[in-house]
Amino acid sequence: MFDLPDSIKEAIAQLSRIPGVGEKTATRQVLALLNWRAEEIKDFSQSFDDLLNIQKCESCGMYADEKICSICSSEERVSQGTICVVENIIDALAIEKSDNYQGTYHILGGVLNPLLGIGPNELNLDLLVKRIESHNVKNIILAINPSVEGDATCSYIRQIVSQDIVIDRIGFGIPVGGSLEYLDGLTISKALENRKQM
Amino acid sequence: MFDLPDSIKEAIAQLSRIPGVGEKTATRQVLALLNWRAEEIKDFSQSFDDLLNIQKCESCGMYADEKICSICSSEERVSQGTICVVENIIDALAIEKSDNYQGTYHILGGVLNPLLGIGPNELNLDLLVKRIESHNVKNIILAINPSVEGDATCSYIRQIVSQDIVIDRIGFGIPVGGSLEYLDGLTISKALENRKQM
Repeated sequence: MFDLPDSIKEAIAQLSRIPGVGEKTATRQVLALLNWRAEEIKDFSQSFDDLLNIQKCESCGMYADEKICSICSSEERVSQGTICVVENIIDALAIEKSDNYQGTYHILGGVLNPLLGIGPNELNLDLLVKRIESHNVKNIILAINPSVEGDATCSYIRQIVSQDIVIDRIGFGIPVGGSLEYLDGLTISKALENRKQM
Repeated sequence: MFDLPDSIKEAIAQLSRIPGVGEKTATRQVLALLNWRAEEIKDFSQSFDDLLNIQKCESCGMYADEKICSICSSEERVSQGTICVVENIIDALAIEKSDNYQGTYHILGGVLNPLLGIGPNELNLDLLVKRIESHNVKNIILAINPSVEGDATCSYIRQIVSQDIVIDRIGFGIPVGGSLEYLDGLTISKALENRKQM
């Protein structure tokens, strides 16, 4: 049976390494890409090479072009005195997209998970405590996903942060557009617990 | 609102240029890729750079590492005296995967389509006629998809190829695993027309 040239097979293998891309999809995509002009393929490859220059913000852990990201270097946002703690960069981007938060972020890089060997030292916690002490931080919002590990991480943060700091956890309940009929019991319990007087 | 660094935005834009990849998917994929080690990202980018060295077989038009692809340089396959004409490389790969064809291929690079300005000169037809004359070709199988343009292309090939050559068109009918209930009328007409005595 005919085999594709090695360079094509290698590009397919590389593309299949991206989560969610199977070999069939990758084959179709690489063959589509081969119809591009040489400069276009060059630009494509170059754009991934350029990712190697990406840095992480030394303050919050967000991807940044400079040493400090655009949020941490914005006087307006830092002066709010609020840090929103998230598990990862994608979560921070999701909050940022909701366009309803004006403070800064702090990327933990995961949640405590003893089974996977993720303890406090594996998370970006020391820097969080330092930021709280050195900047004039008054509020922490824990935007950590609800799970056993997430809950434990939140409790741990409450313990290591000075009691003067107000720590809120993001609200749980029925998502907008969601329907009670299809929601799990735990979400409904949380929604009842978090009811608000009208 | 916070913006991702330019290099990430550029990689997302490049990935979205692949057909079937939207901006959301590309964003998720690039952010996943950013968790890789530097050498892994380097290999990824390099594999697409290497695609620039891909050649097309001077005989059939298939992708090849050398000037002549592995099928056209196989004495066993060329000696069958059969050329299977397909629209594009992906179609040839699909036939090759069925593992039921032992001859060579010829990639047309499309079908005649006057509306899109694709005439006989835009297709790889001259080389087909030359290959038929110079090699000892006895059979042509037209594995061209059924459409008005595909039908016209088949008729055109019948006209330009010597009448001594047997030209077959690939069979149309009900796909294996298909159900009459869900097939269009044209396919059913073709299937009735192509019925075989048991």
